[in-house]
Amino acid sequence: MFLDPEGIIAAPATVPGTGAISIVRISGAGCLEVVDRVVRFAAGNASSSKGGIIKFGRVFSGEDLLDEVMVAIFRNPHSYTGEDSAEITCHASKYIVEEILRILCENGARMAGPGEFTGRAFLNGKLDLAQAEAVADLISSSGKASHKVAMNQLRGGYSNKLEGLREKLVEIAALMELELDFSEEDVEFADRYQLKALVDDTLEHISSLMESFKAGNALKNGIPVAIAGPVNAGKSTLLNALLGEDRAIVSPVAGTTRDTIEEMVNLGGLPFRFIDTAGIRESSDTIEKMGIERTLHKLSGAEIVLGMLDSSSSEEEIRNGLNGIISHFNPNAQKLVILLNKADKIDPNKKVTINNIIVSEVDNKIISSILSISAKTGEGIDFLIKNLVEIGTGIVSTGEETVVSNLRHYNSLASSYDSLKRVRRGIEARLSPDLLSEDLRQSLWHIGSITGHVSTDEILGNIFSKFCIGK
Amino acid sequence: MFLDPEGIIAAPATVPGTGAISIVRISGAGCLEVVDRVVRFAAGNASSSKGGIIKFGRVFSGEDLLDEVMVAIFRNPHSYTGEDSAEITCHASKYIVEEILRILCENGARMAGPGEFTGRAFLNGKLDLAQAEAVADLISSSGKASHKVAMNQLRGGYSNKLEGLREKLVEIAALMELELDFSEEDVEFADRYQLKALVDDTLEHISSLMESFKAGNALKNGIPVAIAGPVNAGKSTLLNALLGEDRAIVSPVAGTTRDTIEEMVNLGGLPFRFIDTAGIRESSDTIEKMGIERTLHKLSGAEIVLGMLDSSSSEEEIRNGLNGIISHFNPNAQKLVILLNKADKIDPNKKVTINNIIVSEVDNKIISSILSISAKTGEGIDFLIKNLVEIGTGIVSTGEETVVSNLRHYNSLASSYDSLKRVRRGIEARLSPDLLSEDLRQSLWHIGSITGHVSTDEILGNIFSKFCIGK
Repeated sequence: MFLDPEGIIAAPATVPGTGAISIVRISGAGCLEVVDRVVRFAAGNASSSKGGIIKFGRVFSGEDLLDEVMVAIFRNPHSYTGEDSAEITCHASKYIVEEILRILCENGARMAGPGEFTGRAFLNGKLDLAQAEAVADLISSSGKASHKVAMNQLRGGYSNKLEGLREKLVEIAALMELELDFSEEDVEFADRYQLKALVDDTLEHISSLMESFKAGNALKNGIPVAIAGPVNAGKSTLLNALLGEDRAIVSPVAGTTRDTIEEMVNLGGLPFRFIDTAGIRESSDTIEKMGIERTLHKLSGAEIVLGMLDSSSSEEEIRNGLNGIISHFNPNAQKLVILLNKADKIDPNKKVTINNIIVSEVDNKIISSILSISAKTGEGIDFLIKNLVEIGTGIVSTGEETVVSNLRHYNSLASSYDSLKRVRRGIEARLSPDLLSEDLRQSLWHIGSITGHVSTDEILGNIFSKFCIGK
Repeated sequence: MFLDPEGIIAAPATVPGTGAISIVRISGAGCLEVVDRVVRFAAGNASSSKGGIIKFGRVFSGEDLLDEVMVAIFRNPHSYTGEDSAEITCHASKYIVEEILRILCENGARMAGPGEFTGRAFLNGKLDLAQAEAVADLISSSGKASHKVAMNQLRGGYSNKLEGLREKLVEIAALMELELDFSEEDVEFADRYQLKALVDDTLEHISSLMESFKAGNALKNGIPVAIAGPVNAGKSTLLNALLGEDRAIVSPVAGTTRDTIEEMVNLGGLPFRFIDTAGIRESSDTIEKMGIERTLHKLSGAEIVLGMLDSSSSEEEIRNGLNGIISHFNPNAQKLVILLNKADKIDPNKKVTINNIIVSEVDNKIISSILSISAKTGEGIDFLIKNLVEIGTGIVSTGEETVVSNLRHYNSLASSYDSLKRVRRGIEARLSPDLLSEDLRQSLWHIGSITGHVSTDEILGNIFSKFCIGK
């Protein structure tokens, strides 16, 4: 079993060796007795202390003083895990943290696995699964918008929404059961219309939650923006200008390939993931081709394409560059912003010429805006950022206050939707309700699996017991 | 002024974005009122709470819930800084931590500078300078031995030792003063012998503390071990074998150059700093020469040299390799361990031949040991480690329980020693004590500067007032 509810678990809650302070957490019935065996308190002890108290003490490694520590004591159920637990605050030394953990384990604790403290909180009913997942999202959230989604999920707004869906599905089950009781009499009730309406309403709710995933995913992983255009148009310089000193670089995205550079940046409270698609043109040997294919794949996944042109280059180069950008652009799924770079060097006549080229080559309905910038001097960058935030706000806005940001949840919703769709078709085909029970059961199970509230066959079995027994 | 004792300071005490929990610290008179303006507590408030209490609350950013937090309250003087202070524990999100800091600063706090919390502790007499420096050493200490040195310094054992030295110097001043009172009568007292003996005793104490710096420095920065030998002898493979899975890599040493690789490894509780001196032979262009010079400099700073030979190579190659190692080896300051690598491939006859070469080329008194190993298979590596720990223990062992590990302290001790040495010469030359007062004053000042206990001219002035006024 992954989540072992037994035993006393201990782990560092901070990364030792950095910062000033480290925290070692311990949780589980009897953990305060373990703490008493490990920490020599200045006065009293942990196991007879009430919760919400900090006690000063010393940890010894054999005869040697290891560290002076502060121990925060939490009492079941008023703790993160819902169990008795303690947080031992020590100096942020890797050696000290490892020693404290070693000594705790010698005295009755065991090392916690990844997420096991939150797992305990789930087992003890402090959090449901979706809330537990929100803890990880909250920690990694890098801006106001993604923070809000994670906080809503952590506080239970999201789970309430799903509970609402689950109740609808249970109501459908009840209506089907009602019809079942009369089906042998071959009477068609008005209830069948009510049932259909309820199923449709539920399908719509699931579907709108599913649609919010695009926004949720963009908030969580950054709104993907591809910087496209010919070599030397100034793509890398633009990336640097966007990452400028007063804008925090969130982090390099994990698993980035060498041939595309991705950077997360917060602009106007929204996370953007900028993808520099370098070297899109040269396609000679096979390895390079693989790189280009990856680049094109990244390009196709972008929500916004910044098509960048060097306005100081020749008309033919501009025409070719523009066509290169357009050939990979998907007007149905992406927004296009044309950037005329090196604006500081351009004279007004050239600008007219370039505009004429753009108008003649591209259907201007697919262009969100055309901006003159200088990536080098920073001219026009603020206006570009305003533009990006405007488009980005549209992408992450959703009618739903509840936003799905987790791929597991999205997949569960999709599975629930598919099952309920089969129920809908069965109703239309006037199948007997007991033939639809398995699909409805699955639809319910998938919704329940998101929060973990209904995760065992036994509970689902109870709901459907009237369908299966004696019929 | 670097240390500003005024105002309420706030800073993260952990690195946000990693781990589960982050802590934001705030300190200074009135800081709990700031906390009350920022945190909505479930019950009561921080400013009317006693110390040693944890309170649950919520931080809002405008209308939006930012995070649920635990606030640990500490009351002057029972806190790290000696002031009223609080630790706000939140989720380890960079965004949340930055927002909490921003909101604290909006409500009366200011961002703390590096080390400012420990600076406050110094200003409020919770720590002296040497203890404050030990905090940083404690956090970065990576093994039992260096941890012990830092902990002794933090607990004040070190400062007590220095206080003892300071008292001796004050006693010398008193004796000199006594003599001064009688000097006009031109009487030579037995006290002059007592004075000389006391100065000698103090010089010896300072000198033995200075000698401990070699050990302290090795403990703090790692015992430097150079891996030397011809190209392809297997130096890098050996480094990898020593860094093997069950031995923790501490960290790459900061500021390492590309042409020498340094790695910190804990072996038997001792920190070793392994220096792979690659490419010691080729010396063609000037840039390469610079690299080689740097390598030779690193080699000369090593306490232990692992001279590595490929035992499967020709007799001439072995002879040349051995001479290359010996030519850069300093038998007066370094220990030499000869490693015959690729022992798995060697036959017994070859081993005899190699031993004969070593005996004929090298004075065997300068060799600590000759070991057959296979860096590739790991054969003999455990024995090599045992050997290193043995030699390393000799290097870090010192008669003194108090070990100087800080270069600033070493330099202060050296300056104090030099000044006191001048006093000694003055006594021998029968100079009038008032001519020696400036040197004695300097000797005292340097000792005092280590802990910061005597750091102002005013205090030193008081000690010497009888020397200077009316004489």
